[in-house]
Amino acid sequence: MTAPVQALVLFAHGARDARWREPFDRLQQKLAAALPGCDVRLAFLELMAPLLPDALAELAARGVAEVTVVPVFFGQGGHIRRDLPALLDQCRQVHPGLRIHCAAAVGESDAVLDAIAAYCVGSLTGAPAAT
Amino acid sequence: MTAPVQALVLFAHGARDARWREPFDRLQQKLAAALPGCDVRLAFLELMAPLLPDALAELAARGVAEVTVVPVFFGQGGHIRRDLPALLDQCRQVHPGLRIHCAAAVGESDAVLDAIAAYCVGSLTGAPAAT
Repeated sequence: MTAPVQALVLFAHGARDARWREPFDRLQQKLAAALPGCDVRLAFLELMAPLLPDALAELAARGVAEVTVVPVFFGQGGHIRRDLPALLDQCRQVHPGLRIHCAAAVGESDAVLDAIAAYCVGSLTGAPAAT
Repeated sequence: MTAPVQALVLFAHGARDARWREPFDRLQQKLAAALPGCDVRLAFLELMAPLLPDALAELAARGVAEVTVVPVFFGQGGHIRRDLPALLDQCRQVHPGLRIHCAAAVGESDAVLDAIAAYCVGSLTGAPAAT
């Protein structure tokens, strides 16, 4: 099987409780179905496997040419502003043949916030009518 | 001014970097605009103010009758399965006049995951066509 030219890595924090990752698994499955020509994977900052450098090393070993890392975080705090760029710089040095792009955190997307807002409105019991 | 009958608390983790909360502030603003009859606030588990018990105490003091807490978390790990129910039980005992409901984490919503998936597809450079 030929390696896909492109990959998408969903970068999440990780947690001790294995059930924490369920929505991330669902997201990975949705994207793998939507992007059949793209290698879609999860990777974590800590506490869960694979860690980001391991996921990127595996993509490089498969001969993937280009990868986009999307931080599945709401806010751009220290993990996204400091830890992630340092990890990516390190990976770029180790795998010069792999072009690594990085998107803004998903919480920066207005459409994502709108979907969360709609969920919140729907969660109100005896909700006042939304305008 | 009469206290609103209902409130919505967006419960987030909190972080050291103040910029982390930007999307949560935007979410709060969207919901305050969409729900003019509802007191919409942010509250945090740690590191940022107000903490959840303080936010709920303030709502109780304002005479709010009913509040829905929506965890703005992707996964339901230990913070949502353990810490949050314990906090809510404690608040229910302290404020018996305030009915406190709790929704599932926003990452449980398929519509939220679909919006995140669409953002991820859009972030690919030279993206393979989505199906």
